[in-house]
Amino acid sequence: MACEKLAVVLVEPQGALNIGSVCRAMLNFGIDELRLVNPQVDHLSRDARLMAVKAASVLESAKTYTCLEAALADCALSFGTTRRFGRYREDLMHPDEAARSLLPIAQHGQVALVFGREDKGLLTAELDLCQHFITIPTNEELPSMNLAQAVVVCLYEVKKVRGELVGQEHGRKKLADNAELEALYQHMRQSLVHIGYLDSQNPDHILRSFRRIFGRSGLNSREVSILRGLFNQIDLFSGQKLTRKQIREDNA
Amino acid sequence: MACEKLAVVLVEPQGALNIGSVCRAMLNFGIDELRLVNPQVDHLSRDARLMAVKAASVLESAKTYTCLEAALADCALSFGTTRRFGRYREDLMHPDEAARSLLPIAQHGQVALVFGREDKGLLTAELDLCQHFITIPTNEELPSMNLAQAVVVCLYEVKKVRGELVGQEHGRKKLADNAELEALYQHMRQSLVHIGYLDSQNPDHILRSFRRIFGRSGLNSREVSILRGLFNQIDLFSGQKLTRKQIREDNA
Repeated sequence: MACEKLAVVLVEPQGALNIGSVCRAMLNFGIDELRLVNPQVDHLSRDARLMAVKAASVLESAKTYTCLEAALADCALSFGTTRRFGRYREDLMHPDEAARSLLPIAQHGQVALVFGREDKGLLTAELDLCQHFITIPTNEELPSMNLAQAVVVCLYEVKKVRGELVGQEHGRKKLADNAELEALYQHMRQSLVHIGYLDSQNPDHILRSFRRIFGRSGLNSREVSILRGLFNQIDLFSGQKLTRKQIREDNA
Repeated sequence: MACEKLAVVLVEPQGALNIGSVCRAMLNFGIDELRLVNPQVDHLSRDARLMAVKAASVLESAKTYTCLEAALADCALSFGTTRRFGRYREDLMHPDEAARSLLPIAQHGQVALVFGREDKGLLTAELDLCQHFITIPTNEELPSMNLAQAVVVCLYEVKKVRGELVGQEHGRKKLADNAELEALYQHMRQSLVHIGYLDSQNPDHILRSFRRIFGRSGLNSREVSILRGLFNQIDLFSGQKLTRKQIREDNA
């Protein structure tokens, strides 16, 4: 089981089959803490157990709460899922972005992924208890996903990002840590200002594009070394350029 | 509905609820062609319709076949899902890689995503009819996913990559096309051999790492321009380096 503190919170779930399906998906992706807020069905019923299959342990250890506030009382950060783009547009994340945001925090503090009712999702007052909002990009023709399938997509992304963080993803090496990346960007800034590619008055404007490119690709330590090697070579060149003066002076 | 030719193929599905859930997930992610190979239940039953909800059209237009070979007869490429790592290890893709591979092909030819039975997946003879193999990374404690949930993960990745290709993903610009990328790598090869960063005898070894980094991040046209700008500036410098000779000659 993963070591992060991540709970799946279902608010007023109406289907026992769905609750069972959520448990199986949780165990598929290595999450075992389920919190149920005022469930509308018996979560230990035959139907729920049928869908949970080998994840009955998740079902049996689920905690129930009378309101969402109580379920989130110990949480450092809560992510609410919604399709209401208008109100929460500014903070709306796709599941992959959300996974990248929540995993580092879940190493230290409790994080919750909150899913609403099958028919009408989370209420405004419930979304207000969350700090971030997740939306799953679906087709306009049928945007509404099955509850358990929405959980699957979010937990799949959590597992994927967790794999990247510990280097299990596609047999790749562990991702470079923040200190390595900042040292790389610092090096890039100096080298590229020196050769006149970055504006020394405002180097960070273009550098931000590089941060985005490398941020999306998720550099590992070997790749950071390869890039540092490139900038070392550029430094050698821009150093040699300076020696043109020396050459002139030598030849004078 | 998306314009690519992509069909979901279920081989001997045993649960009507699952078939219905697959239809809803398909419509959630903009895919409407379902092919059923020797289904073990009535796919038009009440249970299937119950789970399909508003995707009854997918259910009703599903085609049935007596064997997988017949279902794949018109396919240019078929992706079989499996958890049998040993036999297919070399060609095993995660769903995101598979989506990137299949979408360009599905613009022109028919592509199939093939899923096996709930209890034992696809048989060896069935996998042999596929050219690529997809595995969803799950937890060792409970690796086996629900059929419909496995379909959800694959189609979610298809939708995500489709969004990147047409530039809908996170409001980003359209991805650069292959010709732009190859021109970039060509430019990089020349510039970086010139400054002695790449070995002129074997420039493609390190260049392959850059292809992987930029491939993962998915460059858009603006970002390709920014990178071309950097290599232009490096060219300027390495040109100036060449003029050291000229400087010497001038000063001789």
